[in-house]
Amino acid sequence: MPSPFPNGADPSPHHHRFHSTVSETKLRRLNSLILLLRLASFCFALAAAVFMVTNSSRSPGSPSWIDSEPFRLVFAANAIVAVYSLFEMGASIWEILKGSTPLPEPMQLWFDFAHDQVFAYLAAAAGAAGAAEARGMRGSGACASESAFCVQGDIAVALGFAAFAFVALAALASGFRLVSFLVTGSRFPLS
Amino acid sequence: MPSPFPNGADPSPHHHRFHSTVSETKLRRLNSLILLLRLASFCFALAAAVFMVTNSSRSPGSPSWIDSEPFRLVFAANAIVAVYSLFEMGASIWEILKGSTPLPEPMQLWFDFAHDQVFAYLAAAAGAAGAAEARGMRGSGACASESAFCVQGDIAVALGFAAFAFVALAALASGFRLVSFLVTGSRFPLS
Repeated sequence: MPSPFPNGADPSPHHHRFHSTVSETKLRRLNSLILLLRLASFCFALAAAVFMVTNSSRSPGSPSWIDSEPFRLVFAANAIVAVYSLFEMGASIWEILKGSTPLPEPMQLWFDFAHDQVFAYLAAAAGAAGAAEARGMRGSGACASESAFCVQGDIAVALGFAAFAFVALAALASGFRLVSFLVTGSRFPLS
Repeated sequence: MPSPFPNGADPSPHHHRFHSTVSETKLRRLNSLILLLRLASFCFALAAAVFMVTNSSRSPGSPSWIDSEPFRLVFAANAIVAVYSLFEMGASIWEILKGSTPLPEPMQLWFDFAHDQVFAYLAAAAGAAGAAEARGMRGSGACASESAFCVQGDIAVALGFAAFAFVALAALASGFRLVSFLVTGSRFPLS
């Protein structure tokens, strides 16, 4: 059995308080690292969504992000990633302050890892689709008269790729926590 | 230390022969599962690359996959995934027959997991870019006169997504093997 507590209930949720100081320091370092990754992915995803959603000019007949399927995907994916990262930042701060996870521990670890993986693939796909669309616009000559629209679209796509990179790193960290929990019965780094 | 053999050399490469029968059966099952995932991702990636590379008609002036950046990405990504899957199938068969990995064990496990992750993101990105391009072509009316070109492009993109799904599953399996090795010092499933 991977977990010594098959029903998912940890009988001593606060036993890490009695760990050695080395473990405590390592745990605090990992939690801070995860919080930092969440903050970075939140900032980049929010910036990408805002850049994309403001990417239309007032004059009628000029292009708008809402007319382009891939640009709508970039906005939606980055908005989802931003909301998710905000929620995860809250969970991370909760954990640093209270020493326990908001959801029951196994559920929280599986939730984090599964969503990190799925949203990393989503962000990668949205970035690639947006980059293809931006390239296609440039190729079709639409950017000659609407240069600002194309540049702002490129920036939004690039910010989305930065958000993807931080979500993918967070997926590695949460995968490490999950495996650590499954193997040793606690989410702390192996010491 | 995660590994009891810090220099990466396992002093008894054949010690799994003396494991219990339960472990042996589990190991064979995991290796067969990985081989099956490799085979599926190879077939789908090869089919996607072939469908994409044959997607041009003889008559001059008609569209060809080579004129489209995203379609070239779909071809290149799926060709890379097919070659990689073929190599990994060879490694998997070698391991089933000989009981040891072709590369030194830690290197092989890190190699598998890292490449699975990277190529899964690559395949997802290529699929999304190709899907955006296919949609854009349909929207711009290019498919009215070139229906076969568009349908074949759609099929290639869909096959590429299937290859992505199997590479992502293989990444989970190789991640499990890697963690199992780092924690217990052997790549076999925890029994």
